[in-house]
Amino acid sequence: MKRGGESADRTLRKEGAAPDPERLAERLARGDRRALARSITLVESSLPEHRRSAEALLDAVAGLAPTSLRVAVSGAPGAGKSTFIEALGRYLIARNLRPAVLAVDPSSGLSGGSILGDKTRMPELARHPAAFVRPSPTRGAYGGVARRTPEVIMLCEAAGFDPIVVETVGVGQSEAAVASMVDMLVLLVLPGGGDELQGIKRGVMELADLVLVNKADGAFAESAAATASEYASAIGLLPSRWRGWRASVRTCSALTGDGIEMAWTDMQRFREGLGDEIRAKREDQSLRWLWSEIEEGFKEALEGSPELRRARQGLEEAVRSGRIAAPVAAARLLRRILNR
Amino acid sequence: MKRGGESADRTLRKEGAAPDPERLAERLARGDRRALARSITLVESSLPEHRRSAEALLDAVAGLAPTSLRVAVSGAPGAGKSTFIEALGRYLIARNLRPAVLAVDPSSGLSGGSILGDKTRMPELARHPAAFVRPSPTRGAYGGVARRTPEVIMLCEAAGFDPIVVETVGVGQSEAAVASMVDMLVLLVLPGGGDELQGIKRGVMELADLVLVNKADGAFAESAAATASEYASAIGLLPSRWRGWRASVRTCSALTGDGIEMAWTDMQRFREGLGDEIRAKREDQSLRWLWSEIEEGFKEALEGSPELRRARQGLEEAVRSGRIAAPVAAARLLRRILNR
Repeated sequence: MKRGGESADRTLRKEGAAPDPERLAERLARGDRRALARSITLVESSLPEHRRSAEALLDAVAGLAPTSLRVAVSGAPGAGKSTFIEALGRYLIARNLRPAVLAVDPSSGLSGGSILGDKTRMPELARHPAAFVRPSPTRGAYGGVARRTPEVIMLCEAAGFDPIVVETVGVGQSEAAVASMVDMLVLLVLPGGGDELQGIKRGVMELADLVLVNKADGAFAESAAATASEYASAIGLLPSRWRGWRASVRTCSALTGDGIEMAWTDMQRFREGLGDEIRAKREDQSLRWLWSEIEEGFKEALEGSPELRRARQGLEEAVRSGRIAAPVAAARLLRRILNR
Repeated sequence: MKRGGESADRTLRKEGAAPDPERLAERLARGDRRALARSITLVESSLPEHRRSAEALLDAVAGLAPTSLRVAVSGAPGAGKSTFIEALGRYLIARNLRPAVLAVDPSSGLSGGSILGDKTRMPELARHPAAFVRPSPTRGAYGGVARRTPEVIMLCEAAGFDPIVVETVGVGQSEAAVASMVDMLVLLVLPGGGDELQGIKRGVMELADLVLVNKADGAFAESAAATASEYASAIGLLPSRWRGWRASVRTCSALTGDGIEMAWTDMQRFREGLGDEIRAKREDQSLRWLWSEIEEGFKEALEGSPELRRARQGLEEAVRSGRIAAPVAAARLLRRILNR
């Protein structure tokens, strides 16, 4: 759980003291990719002094308030998420856009951010100066989606990247978490699958704003079209979460590039048609984020001092054995925390 | 949301100052029903000075550690929960047992605890000196189940009542909450219903340790038996949460009394067969209760002082409008709370 943070800390130590937040913010505003990489390392660090700098940095960029389109790309392993994002990224760069990709890699919690692995998975995008590719460590809250991902999104926006594409691990639990951080959720599925709709949970289907049947090429073109109409009727039964948008289903091929333009057109229609609704959603997301951070921060405070940790463990043991009633133990612990 | 608490406060004021916890605990240990009623009013009070006394009382009774069987009785409105509990209660009293019934009345959050209503619904039980009937106000946490219900269960145990029967409102949300407070969940259903199993959610079925097809009398006797075997095969497909127990399905009639003895036999088999497992479950429940109380208490502290409330509202507004990033606002608020 700590590995990603420790690795980030090491990187910062190697680079010297925590970078000056004001200066980082200035460089970010100029679109400096190296400053962006350093800023992300800073907000992902678990050292308290880095956290203070990270907060100052977030404060400095909060004023910039650009609003890039934030898109999550989800789908089961093998649905071709990386290849799709690479194809979309190439398409966007060719149109003078600057996409950022936050690849949430399920293994990066252990390896401390598999930057090399990600370069391999999106080779062209990761090398291109107009794009920014960054794996997120998976530690922390939000089941598989890194706790700091919303902060990383803010930093990418501050550096002028647009759209911000968040690739999820696609195990059916992180979708709701990632949906709470983005404007739009794109679900990638494969041709075929039939009545159970490839085991995709109803909850995930309800979150999808755009379903793409990928690998619609060669021998699969026909079954992709059939799968698309199956998804279209399934999605037609679900309530829409937007006044101005009904989830659409398209086919595409990340391999041939077919359907990539259409997918981007849909994303732009989404952004343009839902301006006010997206703003309202972001306000709501921000408030939830605030409360989630308050709760996480409170739990960290409980773990932070050895003295509080011991007090908590002692009370847990007393509650478990029935010597103290839970609300009495809770009240004692809270008095201790709040009156320190 | 405050009504139940205000009513409790009023009752205590009428009776004078908060009762002496030590003395209340002594009277509870002797099985004094009036002391039990007063104790419950005390723990349900929202006044801070009452809360201190309530904690002292809970501390005094935590040492007593009797372990009555805690049974939740759930089921859709009209399934006959009150009538069943009345019939079970009469049966238990005739065997020199002293049951306590905590009737969770969905309307009591508004009326401040409809004691009269409950007396009408379980007329005999409510009057009998060997039984104790108490509605719980529905305010607070746990969606419909009163936040203080676990404390009320402790008090009933301390007063020697056994079993403790918690009647849920049965709207499909409170079952999980009430299951976290009891040893055993009894689900009451009606004859008939067919393939959808009367709209009872799979989640509720998974929580049931005993399913009773009620109203198995007269013209319904036959369809009750058919319904029972339907439920038996549905339940057979579900994983068991216990090593030593598989949920059973019975028919009964609260009206004629048929099957009440069998239901009680099942409850006793459950208690006797699962001694260690029930103890382990209670330990787990206590720890969850502790964390839930810590969270609730923390939120109360946030609301408690006008100064903190204003700070929170100001930060919420700044986060909503994008002037401050959520984690920065959260950190500021926490520093303010924790360093007070």
